[in-house]
Amino acid sequence: MITYVNPVGSMNLLSQLEVSQLTRTASSELYQLYRNCSLAVLNSGAHTDSSRDILNRCENFDINLLSRERGVKLELLNPPEDAFVDGEIIRGIQEHLFSVLRDILYVSSQLEQESYFDPTSQAHITNLIFSILRNARTINPASDPNLVVCWGGHSINEEEYSYTHQVGSELGLRELNVCTGCGPGAMEGPMKGATVGHAKQRYNNRRYIGLTEPSIIAAEPPNSIVNELVILPDIEKRLEAFVRLGHAIIIFPGGAGTAEELLYLLGVMMNPFNARQPIPIILTGPKSSEQYFRSIDAFIQTTLGQSAHKYYQIIIDDAPTVARIIKQAMPKVKEFRRAMGDAYSFNWSLQVDPIFQQPFNPTHDNVSQLNLYPDQPPQLLAANLRRAFSAIVAGNVKDEGIKAIEEKGPFLIHGDPQIIHQLDALLKDFIAQHRMKLPGSHYEPCYQIISKETRE
Amino acid sequence: MITYVNPVGSMNLLSQLEVSQLTRTASSELYQLYRNCSLAVLNSGAHTDSSRDILNRCENFDINLLSRERGVKLELLNPPEDAFVDGEIIRGIQEHLFSVLRDILYVSSQLEQESYFDPTSQAHITNLIFSILRNARTINPASDPNLVVCWGGHSINEEEYSYTHQVGSELGLRELNVCTGCGPGAMEGPMKGATVGHAKQRYNNRRYIGLTEPSIIAAEPPNSIVNELVILPDIEKRLEAFVRLGHAIIIFPGGAGTAEELLYLLGVMMNPFNARQPIPIILTGPKSSEQYFRSIDAFIQTTLGQSAHKYYQIIIDDAPTVARIIKQAMPKVKEFRRAMGDAYSFNWSLQVDPIFQQPFNPTHDNVSQLNLYPDQPPQLLAANLRRAFSAIVAGNVKDEGIKAIEEKGPFLIHGDPQIIHQLDALLKDFIAQHRMKLPGSHYEPCYQIISKETRE
Amino acid sequence: MITYVNPVGSMNLLSQLEVSQLTRTASSELYQLYRNCSLAVLNSGAHTDSSRDILNRCENFDINLLSRERGVKLELLNPPEDAFVDGEIIRGIQEHLFSVLRDILYVSSQLEQESYFDPTSQAHITNLIFSILRNARTINPASDPNLVVCWGGHSINEEEYSYTHQVGSELGLRELNVCTGCGPGAMEGPMKGATVGHAKQRYNNRRYIGLTEPSIIAAEPPNSIVNELVILPDIEKRLEAFVRLGHAIIIFPGGAGTAEELLYLLGVMMNPFNARQPIPIILTGPKSSEQYFRSIDAFIQTTLGQSAHKYYQIIIDDAPTVARIIKQAMPKVKEFRRAMGDAYSFNWSLQVDPIFQQPFNPTHDNVSQLNLYPDQPPQLLAANLRRAFSAIVAGNVKDEGIKAIEEKGPFLIHGDPQIIHQLDALLKDFIAQHRMKLPGSHYEPCYQIISKETRE
Amino acid sequence: MITYVNPVGSMNLLSQLEVSQLTRTASSELYQLYRNCSLAVLNSGAHTDSSRDILNRCENFDINLLSRERGVKLELLNPPEDAFVDGEIIRGIQEHLFSVLRDILYVSSQLEQESYFDPTSQAHITNLIFSILRNARTINPASDPNLVVCWGGHSINEEEYSYTHQVGSELGLRELNVCTGCGPGAMEGPMKGATVGHAKQRYNNRRYIGLTEPSIIAAEPPNSIVNELVILPDIEKRLEAFVRLGHAIIIFPGGAGTAEELLYLLGVMMNPFNARQPIPIILTGPKSSEQYFRSIDAFIQTTLGQSAHKYYQIIIDDAPTVARIIKQAMPKVKEFRRAMGDAYSFNWSLQVDPIFQQPFNPTHDNVSQLNLYPDQPPQLLAANLRRAFSAIVAGNVKDEGIKAIEEKGPFLIHGDPQIIHQLDALLKDFIAQHRMKLPGSHYEPCYQIISKETRE
Repeated sequence: MITYVNPVGSMNLLSQLEVSQLTRTASSELYQLYRNCSLAVLNSGAHTDSSRDILNRCENFDINLLSRERGVKLELLNPPEDAFVDGEIIRGIQEHLFSVLRDILYVSSQLEQESYFDPTSQAHITNLIFSILRNARTINPASDPNLVVCWGGHSINEEEYSYTHQVGSELGLRELNVCTGCGPGAMEGPMKGATVGHAKQRYNNRRYIGLTEPSIIAAEPPNSIVNELVILPDIEKRLEAFVRLGHAIIIFPGGAGTAEELLYLLGVMMNPFNARQPIPIILTGPKSSEQYFRSIDAFIQTTLGQSAHKYYQIIIDDAPTVARIIKQAMPKVKEFRRAMGDAYSFNWSLQVDPIFQQPFNPTHDNVSQLNLYPDQPPQLLAANLRRAFSAIVAGNVKDEGIKAIEEKGPFLIHGDPQIIHQLDALLKDFIAQHRMKLPGSHYEPCYQIISKETRE
Repeated sequence: MITYVNPVGSMNLLSQLEVSQLTRTASSELYQLYRNCSLAVLNSGAHTDSSRDILNRCENFDINLLSRERGVKLELLNPPEDAFVDGEIIRGIQEHLFSVLRDILYVSSQLEQESYFDPTSQAHITNLIFSILRNARTINPASDPNLVVCWGGHSINEEEYSYTHQVGSELGLRELNVCTGCGPGAMEGPMKGATVGHAKQRYNNRRYIGLTEPSIIAAEPPNSIVNELVILPDIEKRLEAFVRLGHAIIIFPGGAGTAEELLYLLGVMMNPFNARQPIPIILTGPKSSEQYFRSIDAFIQTTLGQSAHKYYQIIIDDAPTVARIIKQAMPKVKEFRRAMGDAYSFNWSLQVDPIFQQPFNPTHDNVSQLNLYPDQPPQLLAANLRRAFSAIVAGNVKDEGIKAIEEKGPFLIHGDPQIIHQLDALLKDFIAQHRMKLPGSHYEPCYQIISKETRE
Repeated sequence: MITYVNPVGSMNLLSQLEVSQLTRTASSELYQLYRNCSLAVLNSGAHTDSSRDILNRCENFDINLLSRERGVKLELLNPPEDAFVDGEIIRGIQEHLFSVLRDILYVSSQLEQESYFDPTSQAHITNLIFSILRNARTINPASDPNLVVCWGGHSINEEEYSYTHQVGSELGLRELNVCTGCGPGAMEGPMKGATVGHAKQRYNNRRYIGLTEPSIIAAEPPNSIVNELVILPDIEKRLEAFVRLGHAIIIFPGGAGTAEELLYLLGVMMNPFNARQPIPIILTGPKSSEQYFRSIDAFIQTTLGQSAHKYYQIIIDDAPTVARIIKQAMPKVKEFRRAMGDAYSFNWSLQVDPIFQQPFNPTHDNVSQLNLYPDQPPQLLAANLRRAFSAIVAGNVKDEGIKAIEEKGPFLIHGDPQIIHQLDALLKDFIAQHRMKLPGSHYEPCYQIISKETRE
Repeated sequence: MITYVNPVGSMNLLSQLEVSQLTRTASSELYQLYRNCSLAVLNSGAHTDSSRDILNRCENFDINLLSRERGVKLELLNPPEDAFVDGEIIRGIQEHLFSVLRDILYVSSQLEQESYFDPTSQAHITNLIFSILRNARTINPASDPNLVVCWGGHSINEEEYSYTHQVGSELGLRELNVCTGCGPGAMEGPMKGATVGHAKQRYNNRRYIGLTEPSIIAAEPPNSIVNELVILPDIEKRLEAFVRLGHAIIIFPGGAGTAEELLYLLGVMMNPFNARQPIPIILTGPKSSEQYFRSIDAFIQTTLGQSAHKYYQIIIDDAPTVARIIKQAMPKVKEFRRAMGDAYSFNWSLQVDPIFQQPFNPTHDNVSQLNLYPDQPPQLLAANLRRAFSAIVAGNVKDEGIKAIEEKGPFLIHGDPQIIHQLDALLKDFIAQHRMKLPGSHYEPCYQIISKETRE
């Protein structure tokens, strides 16, 4: 089956040079990346944990760029049927297809300017993130602070899902917008809820921003409510995009990915330079999730110290209060940005240290060398713990990670006995609560925890 | 508590004469009507069956019109709290408040022109309905046929609700709009579903039209997704508005009100003059509702004859097919209107006989004199059966009806044994399936069925 | 030649009853009115002084209303060619055609409700004006005061025209909107100028409101820049519409019509009840018009008293200052309206006495009985002088007036020697300055001035 | 005087790296360019011939980029007063200021990527032009062909100006958009005229595109009607932008610059590869300009051969016909683009040879070596003649050119006697007709014509 798709959104005209970049022969690696991300958004709504599942199921899928009189056209060969209604592509998915095209091309053109882009420079990395978001028209200087980042598991139970929906609805009623990692579960609930709140308020400036990355997009395809989809090059840039875009952050129950996000966030916030940043951070869930948050809280206080506790608040089963606290904090966020001469729509003044910016490649080697010992400032320990969770996410759902585990067995994670014990307990809780895989599937850990008194 | 509400929507400027019409002293009956309808929309989302419940619960509620520099302002005394978020009225409810004001004023000014309006003239009645809808800006000549009327019970079970949501979503994905009676249950599900479908298609011309009437609005307050609310003066004008606005009609499971709607519709369609009208009519529900539709179907075929069956189709548990059939019928509807020189947005050429237009006042006397005998054309029998159900709805949920039943006991419904037997069976089914009252409450029938060989 | 025109603007759907009102046979008088006004707007841009010229030139023009699927359609027989570009009607003219339809229908339906409308009631007249403007969507409660009424002659010289253009441009640069009587000359210049100022400011909420009446529209057809055209039933309602809509008034050089407007305005403003109304009134023109304004000023001070002078200011050859004064007055206008609880977009609190509201029929008899003696409050003398000028306008350019003069000779205007002498001098100035007729044509006075010591 | 200006248009957020590029110290050459172009747009509406005049008059003007919470802010020191109304910058000028910022930054960032951009590559140059226009959002793939390029002198007489206005009005009435070099005279008239035509048609998609370049912008500052201003890096890229964007080209009377444009255009069109390009080219003016076009026509036929004549048509004093011909050609342009698979909004398939792309630096040396002999294909002779006129324009109004003439005396232009004679005659006509300088100023030729039988 062959289908042709017209461009929508900002990506309506490519130069001839740009089209040639993405033709099949031109650059096979870039093309593969492009094809796979396109396939992922065409699977919007599919619920699976494994990128490979999707990629395998659609082996005979192909996509070609054609130059046409009104701009570029996409030729899709054997696309997934669910992306279509009565033979017509769903407009939301169509937009996502062109977001993929836009971001892959843009990032590739930016990184190619080697003489210009220095991948070790803090300023250059932040600048690249800004440029990607601006090119995607996600930076919107006209609006006041109102963007709430929602993090949480893609595999949560029905009660939790319904709670995230309720929180989203209360956010929407207060005319707040939502930004998530754009998969299912806690990334979908708040968005769907917000659409209801926004509809009741006749709020038209509705933004449902999804930030994703090539290695996760197939496992967590964007739901089609996302009306601004941005593909960042890697998880570190994606996390930085979250914290620079968001004016408040809510963390719902989740698994390893959520822990990674929380540790990243705490690591950044505990940097003394960021002490006065007024970003509200709220951990919240229904009554039945209370224990979950208590273990997270305990884990953080034990590993990062009691002072880490002051960066967030835990609110159980009270969606209106969550939304109200955030709404009330927005003027403070605005005031702070104004005082710093900083943009409302991009938090330039937040300090993100290189350890949080540099891509962490979760090879077996790199994982085994993580420093999970208390002999370091807490924000560095947070960074290393973050990497441990990042590796687990990779081993669970990312294509390359799964392959590596199949070949070399589980990651070996070494660390100080107390820390490693806490980590082990937390991970076991996650498994018991089915937070590592979609319900119904059996979870085979991709890691092994090893306690050692001293670092090698 | 006193709150002030600013105007929105089309109702932004009243003349001084109009304001004086609705001041408390001016005309106490008109004011009472206005106050009660306003209270009803402020209770949007409240789930109750009884207008009186709501009215009693809010006895100390009051509303005043004030003239202000930017038009009229509403002063609300002791309004229900749920209409507000952090002290601000929800915008959707605010719009509904001004729709009430607009329609009550308009209808009152139209009916006052006694020299002009002849309540017995078919043309004048249809014209009044048209004028009310046009004044509400519900008539939109620019758009092609795409409005689907959804009827069904306000009290349906979860599976049925979820199915109505699914149908709405499939309609939305096909860029169809939805019009309902704007209460809960089958009137809410398709609208909520359509918002999801519309969001996925980035469809902006989204219309969620709610048609209601003063005597039912408190029992079925409009959900706040309704973005066009119109208050017609009585049930007959409301039903006529439905059939003249809609380009297709879906009937979900429901109780007496749904039966009333279906009988009205069949009565109109069976008029030989309307034989060529291409309005698709679909009865649909989940697998578990199949039996329900089979009984309805049997009742209709037994009472109105087998030929009545050809006006509708029954589709079980297949939401995409329901939506697809309707979508595919739209060009035929358009073609027919064009061939007749008729408006796309108001079906002038549909013949609605006086018996369907004249308000039926469900007094005990009127009910007992209904002609439920086979000695009449089927569309007239349909009209009389419709009135029987209308009386039952009134006795169940309308303020005046409930009062009448309390005073004089149940309505006595006489009729031909075979017809009355079928009717009795159907009503018993409704009771058994909890379709007469919201679940949880016990249903005490407001009628008594009496079989008699011949009409008195 | 037959052309069909589709509806635009608010007039997109008529009920069947409304269409029947305007069919040719139904009501020949209403139809004639409708036909003639339609013909006038089709002559937009034609420069002539005489309604009859236009009507005669297009004797075989005809217009019919047809009901069509997307609303009403107009059938034009032998319309003037200039209304078309390559066979397509100019969109601005198309809009005007439907404004005519809208207002003629609306006024006719309002006046028909005899039981309701009392033509002697001050409140009812003001209410009717409000309703006509609201029905035309000219009342816009959302915007702050920014509407400048510009009065002046339709026959002004090039230097004056260029000055009105310059004032319009300065108004536009300050994001002020313009309302005029919508003919050529001083009614066109400020609008054209404002479009330039608005374009430079990228001001999108641009309003070029034209208020006209059936008896003048053919002599002063609306230029097609007018984007809101309203046809009031007579000159008195048109003048009242001007003063209730406008937030400031500029008077450019002109002839009898302009004098009529100024006298009306002074008469209203000199009512003690209106003493605190903060409407800026500016008489302005280029250097060469200075003498003109000095004679007007002298005439007013002599006839109405020195105190009349304080209601207006004269500014010569300084367009930026004119615009700046008005811009700076807008907050005061807003403040006053707010303090009075009055609408920003309709000045309800302005008192307009019956003598200014009651239509004055300029028959020879009525004219000869005007009280132009000093034995009355100045605002009443202003009212009577206003009527004298109104009669002269009628005799100059209105169809019926011209006929009356042809039959019975010039109007005889009696009055107190001093007043009548001033009047005579002013009129002679107007004639000498070619302000009574379009340049090039010879002016034959339609009046005779008669001085008498005492009133009969 | 210091003023701060907020961003508008697409240029609302710069990255910190970008801001630092334009700070005063960072790069003095880029900063100077930026400052001078900014000053030029602030002089919008100023009528002068000399860039230096403007620059000198505003020596103490300065502009600084400041990072602010809602994006960048501009700090203006001692800006020209005419850019402001009552202390507020005129919005159109504000937009132009940010267009300058956008284009200077973009071009500089593109040219910096040396590894990527090859200034000798035809494809790279065309691609750069496309990218600049796309970045300025001037490429609009959604619309059908409707853009008319208007060329002509900045110094034309009143009758000619009025004619260009009339043509613009007729274009506007046919919903065509206008693109010019954005100075006064023939670059302003058609735009102003088009605003009137557009207003009459209520045409909202109005585009008044101005293409300019740093070396000319001060001498021909954009009038503030221009709502899309693009600064191309040099005259060659500007000319290429014109011919790739335009769907039709009108040439009004003008001087050396207009001759340069016409020769460029003929040179491109006479390339056999472009033989089938259906771009209508019309030379037009009022009756009094007929002789002017006859001399141009004679010059072209004599120098480039009779066949050159078939690429254009001359229409005298008939604005409606000019517009009608263009309107009727648009479907053919569309059809051709579709057949070629080319974009509607950028003519990729037009072949522009390197001799037309490579910047010509009008030094005395380069000018003296121009090949103005018949021993070459006509399109090459056209290219060389184009360069001769380009040098004359530089010597007349460009800053650097004027300086060079002051230092080294007039350019010496050698060539074949017949050609050089024709050239001399044409230039003398231009001088006699005051087409080389604004009226009132005396013109001192910046060139000397030298006839030689053979090329050195």
